[in-house]
Amino acid sequence: MTSNELFGALFIPDPIREATSDAAWVAAMLEFEAALAQAEARAGVIPGEAAAAIAAACDAERFEPQALGRAARAVGNPAPPLVSALTETVEGEAARFVHWGATSQDVMDTASMLVARRALALIAAELDAVAAACARLADEHRHTAMPGRTLLQQALPTTFGLKAAGWLVAVLDTRRRLAAVPLAVELGGATGTLASLGGDGLRVLALMAEQLELEEPIVPWHTARARVAELGAALSLAAGTLEKIALDVALLAQTEVAEVAEPAGGGRGGSSTLPHKRNPVGSVLAIACAYRVRAEASILLGAVAQEHERGAGAWQAEWEALGGALAHTGGAAAAVHEVLDGLEVRPEQMRDNLAATDGLVLAEAVSMAMAERVGRLEAHRLVAAASRRAIATGRGLREELLDDAEIRTQLSAEEIDRTLDPARYLGSAEAFVDRALAWYGEQR
Amino acid sequence: MTSNELFGALFIPDPIREATSDAAWVAAMLEFEAALAQAEARAGVIPGEAAAAIAAACDAERFEPQALGRAARAVGNPAPPLVSALTETVEGEAARFVHWGATSQDVMDTASMLVARRALALIAAELDAVAAACARLADEHRHTAMPGRTLLQQALPTTFGLKAAGWLVAVLDTRRRLAAVPLAVELGGATGTLASLGGDGLRVLALMAEQLELEEPIVPWHTARARVAELGAALSLAAGTLEKIALDVALLAQTEVAEVAEPAGGGRGGSSTLPHKRNPVGSVLAIACAYRVRAEASILLGAVAQEHERGAGAWQAEWEALGGALAHTGGAAAAVHEVLDGLEVRPEQMRDNLAATDGLVLAEAVSMAMAERVGRLEAHRLVAAASRRAIATGRGLREELLDDAEIRTQLSAEEIDRTLDPARYLGSAEAFVDRALAWYGEQR
Amino acid sequence: MTSNELFGALFIPDPIREATSDAAWVAAMLEFEAALAQAEARAGVIPGEAAAAIAAACDAERFEPQALGRAARAVGNPAPPLVSALTETVEGEAARFVHWGATSQDVMDTASMLVARRALALIAAELDAVAAACARLADEHRHTAMPGRTLLQQALPTTFGLKAAGWLVAVLDTRRRLAAVPLAVELGGATGTLASLGGDGLRVLALMAEQLELEEPIVPWHTARARVAELGAALSLAAGTLEKIALDVALLAQTEVAEVAEPAGGGRGGSSTLPHKRNPVGSVLAIACAYRVRAEASILLGAVAQEHERGAGAWQAEWEALGGALAHTGGAAAAVHEVLDGLEVRPEQMRDNLAATDGLVLAEAVSMAMAERVGRLEAHRLVAAASRRAIATGRGLREELLDDAEIRTQLSAEEIDRTLDPARYLGSAEAFVDRALAWYGEQR
Amino acid sequence: MTSNELFGALFIPDPIREATSDAAWVAAMLEFEAALAQAEARAGVIPGEAAAAIAAACDAERFEPQALGRAARAVGNPAPPLVSALTETVEGEAARFVHWGATSQDVMDTASMLVARRALALIAAELDAVAAACARLADEHRHTAMPGRTLLQQALPTTFGLKAAGWLVAVLDTRRRLAAVPLAVELGGATGTLASLGGDGLRVLALMAEQLELEEPIVPWHTARARVAELGAALSLAAGTLEKIALDVALLAQTEVAEVAEPAGGGRGGSSTLPHKRNPVGSVLAIACAYRVRAEASILLGAVAQEHERGAGAWQAEWEALGGALAHTGGAAAAVHEVLDGLEVRPEQMRDNLAATDGLVLAEAVSMAMAERVGRLEAHRLVAAASRRAIATGRGLREELLDDAEIRTQLSAEEIDRTLDPARYLGSAEAFVDRALAWYGEQR
Repeated sequence: MTSNELFGALFIPDPIREATSDAAWVAAMLEFEAALAQAEARAGVIPGEAAAAIAAACDAERFEPQALGRAARAVGNPAPPLVSALTETVEGEAARFVHWGATSQDVMDTASMLVARRALALIAAELDAVAAACARLADEHRHTAMPGRTLLQQALPTTFGLKAAGWLVAVLDTRRRLAAVPLAVELGGATGTLASLGGDGLRVLALMAEQLELEEPIVPWHTARARVAELGAALSLAAGTLEKIALDVALLAQTEVAEVAEPAGGGRGGSSTLPHKRNPVGSVLAIACAYRVRAEASILLGAVAQEHERGAGAWQAEWEALGGALAHTGGAAAAVHEVLDGLEVRPEQMRDNLAATDGLVLAEAVSMAMAERVGRLEAHRLVAAASRRAIATGRGLREELLDDAEIRTQLSAEEIDRTLDPARYLGSAEAFVDRALAWYGEQR
Repeated sequence: MTSNELFGALFIPDPIREATSDAAWVAAMLEFEAALAQAEARAGVIPGEAAAAIAAACDAERFEPQALGRAARAVGNPAPPLVSALTETVEGEAARFVHWGATSQDVMDTASMLVARRALALIAAELDAVAAACARLADEHRHTAMPGRTLLQQALPTTFGLKAAGWLVAVLDTRRRLAAVPLAVELGGATGTLASLGGDGLRVLALMAEQLELEEPIVPWHTARARVAELGAALSLAAGTLEKIALDVALLAQTEVAEVAEPAGGGRGGSSTLPHKRNPVGSVLAIACAYRVRAEASILLGAVAQEHERGAGAWQAEWEALGGALAHTGGAAAAVHEVLDGLEVRPEQMRDNLAATDGLVLAEAVSMAMAERVGRLEAHRLVAAASRRAIATGRGLREELLDDAEIRTQLSAEEIDRTLDPARYLGSAEAFVDRALAWYGEQR
Repeated sequence: MTSNELFGALFIPDPIREATSDAAWVAAMLEFEAALAQAEARAGVIPGEAAAAIAAACDAERFEPQALGRAARAVGNPAPPLVSALTETVEGEAARFVHWGATSQDVMDTASMLVARRALALIAAELDAVAAACARLADEHRHTAMPGRTLLQQALPTTFGLKAAGWLVAVLDTRRRLAAVPLAVELGGATGTLASLGGDGLRVLALMAEQLELEEPIVPWHTARARVAELGAALSLAAGTLEKIALDVALLAQTEVAEVAEPAGGGRGGSSTLPHKRNPVGSVLAIACAYRVRAEASILLGAVAQEHERGAGAWQAEWEALGGALAHTGGAAAAVHEVLDGLEVRPEQMRDNLAATDGLVLAEAVSMAMAERVGRLEAHRLVAAASRRAIATGRGLREELLDDAEIRTQLSAEEIDRTLDPARYLGSAEAFVDRALAWYGEQR
Repeated sequence: MTSNELFGALFIPDPIREATSDAAWVAAMLEFEAALAQAEARAGVIPGEAAAAIAAACDAERFEPQALGRAARAVGNPAPPLVSALTETVEGEAARFVHWGATSQDVMDTASMLVARRALALIAAELDAVAAACARLADEHRHTAMPGRTLLQQALPTTFGLKAAGWLVAVLDTRRRLAAVPLAVELGGATGTLASLGGDGLRVLALMAEQLELEEPIVPWHTARARVAELGAALSLAAGTLEKIALDVALLAQTEVAEVAEPAGGGRGGSSTLPHKRNPVGSVLAIACAYRVRAEASILLGAVAQEHERGAGAWQAEWEALGGALAHTGGAAAAVHEVLDGLEVRPEQMRDNLAATDGLVLAEAVSMAMAERVGRLEAHRLVAAASRRAIATGRGLREELLDDAEIRTQLSAEEIDRTLDPARYLGSAEAFVDRALAWYGEQR
């Protein structure tokens, strides 16, 4: 009985699914046990041959996740059954030294960092691809004027390049944030004193960190769970950042807007009943993934305060939450990567949409052109009145401006035409694109 | 590659895991397709033999969830690949009539209700068992005095029976709430008009509802998602109610409190490094499950507002959220059921703990005994002073009361002794137990 | 120092703000104290004159919320300072009987139900107004064809009447849900035994319930917090339901869609810099309110499990959460009410948008017309091919259908024209509108 | 009508309440307007006298938050009414240049950063005080043995010093995280192009950043909302870290545990009905605050994806969420500061509690002492059996160990006594305390 292959395969590409699978957790737990034995051997706590034998037995293929899970119900976490099974597997004297001096929480917490590290590498690769696509779009469309929209209404012109530059900077920020979350080994024994290692605790801790290439913490972090929650938060920010791109794409792809389309081909985006549709499927998957990441992160953010030296419930809730947050952030990144790589951008449609308000989208340009002379509020008042008339009469803003005596004392017909050209009212859009691309260059 | 057997098997008993598995979803989707064909045959929309052939082909064993999930990435939901696969499976002319007039959302939404119904039946059975255990404990311990605790401090005596009665009423409430959530068939076609069924839409809708024994909605509910969210909320309330019991048990089982212990035996509650421990494992699992249910429910509550006639992301986020909420509510219920069925209750320890404050826990009783004569605030003032002296001197409240001249003008030594007997200061505790048990009797 | 008048006044109309204000809480707490005294007098627990004196002193104007709040920091809730202040206010002997036998939680919990009841009445009135507006729109626009949209893409025609009917049924559902949440008095004393009332506890409880017109609980609900969380969940569902309407309006009001516009006039929806804009301000406020309601509800849903006989943190987190959830649900309802009452609906624009795909939005109609003859999949295949050609050539679907030999063996030119008429492909839309309106009639 | 003074004053100290009040928001908005005018004057965009006149008029006392809030309902945010009111206030020609080239979002976003900066300074001061108290406790109690507890059961000895050291490191981490969140100016005009400033946009942006001492962003961040959400997440982690301390204190203060007590005096921690109680009031307030911070942060984390160039609902939901998250993090920090500064620590009670299991809490020590000779599992088996007998007979672990022939072949009576001394089984506890204090020294 398996239960997330249907939806798992729908939302998450195989490599990320694999990196966060049961098998990956078991492998990470075994990696902890092997590294523990090896560090202890280097510290002279256990014999070197024992460590070698234990490391040799730490092969994930030998252990069956579901059986471990079932056995774990009696004790509340999967470490004890895995340790038992591993001990049975290790031959001879070495069996005595399996899991030496460690506690279940050491296994699970360190394993969670190892699982995270692998998944984060895959996520980073997808984010890199997303950033590259954003950079390409920003560069290619630095002069592609389009309507900027606030509260879903056309506001002023912008460029598709600037929009992509905004995505780019946000993606770079989120990549940096993910990379900055420290991943540390956990080794503390039952209550964080490492009493079971006598005087060798600190030495073994340092060797473990070195062995696993994880950070060495100042003190064991068994109940300092902000570490895990910080990772959850960074994943949630990443997923939200990807969702923002997906949301913009889905909105721009609306039938009536049609400024972009997601890649099609191979049945992609088709509908079972509506043969003509070209659904923004990748964006939709990314948005759905973001919902899940937020929920998983909410578990981690809600689990920071854990009782005494080990949480009674909150700790146990972390494992699936962390795995789910990683997997679905990966799912969102992969979906957006696919969307942007094949994105069809339609500059003519952007231009047509800019013209849809018959000049009203440039009302601010007119307003600003007069503001220096008559003040911002007075200019706003005059243009607002002309805009209202333009809407009422349907004649377009240009005609109303030309016919407005007060406005004509400030602006000539030529000036009016110049202010109504979107390409002349893009301000620093291109400069911002350049800044974003330069920053991208520095980050690589 | 499977990925939730390790933690799935840890938190969720097999039957509930099965009822919310991939296979269960595929089976429910097929149940929709079979019922659709049969309803359409009864309405004369498609031939009866076609319906029979389709129904015969609707066998979940024939379809592989992971393959469906992978194929679903191109279209954003698993219905189209299942419909294609089913169509290929159905022989001859009947294949034409597979999925006739329906849309993907009809399949997924109705399937989600079918999955929910089966899982809810299992959850209800567990809740019944929890209620029965609560009722037994309430009845058996109607006279078992124990410290009532507010803000984690001993406050006044209560009985373990009343505590269990409180759990009982809460569990009955939550069972009623879950049973009250309407589960309706969804059939609307792409935009809710059932246009694809011409004039037969309403008839087919009614027959579908009858066939599947689901409620017939007033209008299609494709974007009235409060239905799904309502179920999520009810599951979250159920999980929280179970978590309350688990939290009380875990707190009462603390080494220093020791008023109850979870069932042991068979290695249950043991620790890998601490041979003496008897961990409240069941409670811990229930609490962890509640964290997950809340997170899954937050997705559903956050997905109520979906765009136009089908959501672009929020809808797709519902499936795993609903499945997860059902599974983990079941996990919490099963864990609490196990905990309460084998709960070891220690009345002597409760009595000892009541004595731990040397009478202070009955300070209110003394206060109330005097309040009628000197007013509530004055009585409070006198007893508070005596209590402070009792703490400072370590002599116990009785001695301080006996030595306090002002108090002795109000209370005799005999009255003081009577007020300090916990069994005499239980107020309506037993009457409340009776009310709870009577209400339980009515609900069965 | 006041701190939520700026944003409070922005999001929440005055009456609802008032009903959930500090003053409303203090008034509700005093209402509890007055009713307690009166119930106890009726039960013969305290003298009738004392009850009268206490009730007379329970005037919210006499108490200063901020001072109570500051004093409450020492004890963790505002009941003790209010009780002290009230006791000082009550003259003579009666002062002895203030708060007789009750605990802080009794005050706060019952007060929260009284605050909720008043706010819910205001919310219900707003929801009634929203329902009425939906019903009017459903009726008026039962024949107004418009594009139905799935995943933000035009899918098939629907009617604006059916869309409004969908909103209507959802609003009626949410109103029913809110009305169904039981509001019960809380009276249990410190640990729920009512020991402080000796043998009179049940009688006083029943009289309190009668006096305050609140439900009498089976047992005190001091730590059965699902009651409060259930209310939070129902408010979240209500806010989400309102958000759905607001989201549809904001999407339909997009510059490029322009099928509806929010009411304007008096500067409403204007922008400080863009004189022409007509922002969907009411929808935006409603959506923002829904975010807050969800967050407040998440506190309540996360606070169900409270320790023993009174929660240490979770309980105290409920007050602002409940108040905030009520206030912002009211804010959302009021905003949507305003939006729908003045909504400008543009049937011609809907018609124009339906034509925007040159027939593609009716591809399913063509498909279904052929499906009976050639099967659903084959029909889908043929129409999908024609649709792709229509997109590629820009000739429109009609021309491609007419030129397709295979299709022409199934459909005549006349049949093709009939299938491409949106008004002929609305299925049960009107029947659903009728069902919704009939149900609305029954609910009133 | 004010509405959060009652609960506001209960949970949040005045300085933080003031820093996040309406008045603080209005002041921050005015600070933006003044800085904008001054930057534009420096850039030669507007006359210097105009800037001076505008800056002079930017006095928060002149503007009434509630009136601004009410006026804001028509436009959806408080910037336009403030700009109007400010323009009316500014005398003469200068009025023309108020808000020159900016959009509402520029005002609100920059103001939110200014509000955050002030509140964060207050929060940082409280966190410093908490860290100092933790460091003092860690140092003073480096040798104070106490039971370490996992799943709320005594597990192994630890020291109160190590517990405090764990709190300390977590608090330092959270302070660092908060300090690392970048606070940037926002200036983009309606769609982020700064078109209204012609060619002067970048120059004005840089000068604004300099003037306000905020970071200069690469591109305007109007819809890159992860910046705000990142702050919310950091606040949530801070609040959770504080909640962890509060939770530990509340658990240790339980009547039956009694290892610490919150500071009393002046009625603090008293109860209205239970004169003897000493409630962990500060911890309870901190925990309640953490619930709110999490909810507010969930709004910010859920608002990352905003539509196009300005969000339609999500953006507007940020203001109260950010203010609330700041205020309640401050509330939690202040409460924990107060708790730790006056915390009563009871080493004798810790010692007594360590003895409560008659040696069982040191079972691992015995186990480890034998493990080297007989292997970990065999040692575990022998000690587990002795432990079970100790529980069954009530004779204590020491007696059972002494009487166990197999064990006696490994351990002498003297060795047994040594292993049962908690002070000899503290491993690296003190070394960890030293590491934490050294790190604290480096951070100051």
